[in-house]
Amino acid sequence: MIMGDFKHLVVAKFKEGVVVEDIIKGMQDLVSELDAVKSFEWGEDVESHEMLRQGFTHSFLMTFNNKEEFTAFLAHPKHVEFSATFSQAIDKVILLDFPTVLAKPVKPAVEPAA
Amino acid sequence: MIMGDFKHLVVAKFKEGVVVEDIIKGMQDLVSELDAVKSFEWGEDVESHEMLRQGFTHSFLMTFNNKEEFTAFLAHPKHVEFSATFSQAIDKVILLDFPTVLAKPVKPAVEPAA
Repeated sequence: MIMGDFKHLVVAKFKEGVVVEDIIKGMQDLVSELDAVKSFEWGEDVESHEMLRQGFTHSFLMTFNNKEEFTAFLAHPKHVEFSATFSQAIDKVILLDFPTVLAKPVKPAVEPAA
Repeated sequence: MIMGDFKHLVVAKFKEGVVVEDIIKGMQDLVSELDAVKSFEWGEDVESHEMLRQGFTHSFLMTFNNKEEFTAFLAHPKHVEFSATFSQAIDKVILLDFPTVLAKPVKPAVEPAA
């Protein structure tokens, strides 16, 4: 079992009328300014059944080196400012923060020679 | 904007009395047997406030090369079998399936020489 980085997962449903692109742009700006955020990826659901996604449409996943860097990120003024904007835009949200377990790590693109 | 792989995200709350380790073991066995699953990582929330995580405790994230391989995975008999077990174990669940956008890709560990 390989322990990975510390992850911050946000699953969101936005309010009607919200321009989601603007919110995502704000999030991209935030994470690109803050070095603590090691990587950031997001997606909009395209496949799940409404019953299974329960109104949630977007997921956002940020990666940190460890819990301490994540905690520092939460308290950063730019994050606090963005959180206020984000909170206004969402209908509902679920947040999970966890050290990842890489149960099946990505294989290297090139296999080492035998 | 870099488009990434296709992801299958599961956010779950397990029923009381369920041995979560057994479920995770079953999931690990499943993904290690099926080549379509390119990578698999999971985590148990340690930081989020109850109000924010709304009872959900675990997230599972599987990565596929593309939507077609994900669709084939869903229909695979081993996945269908595991899903039945998983469904029995959960109190509630949210599923999102999406092509990822790598808004901040991981930097290479070694910077190229200037």
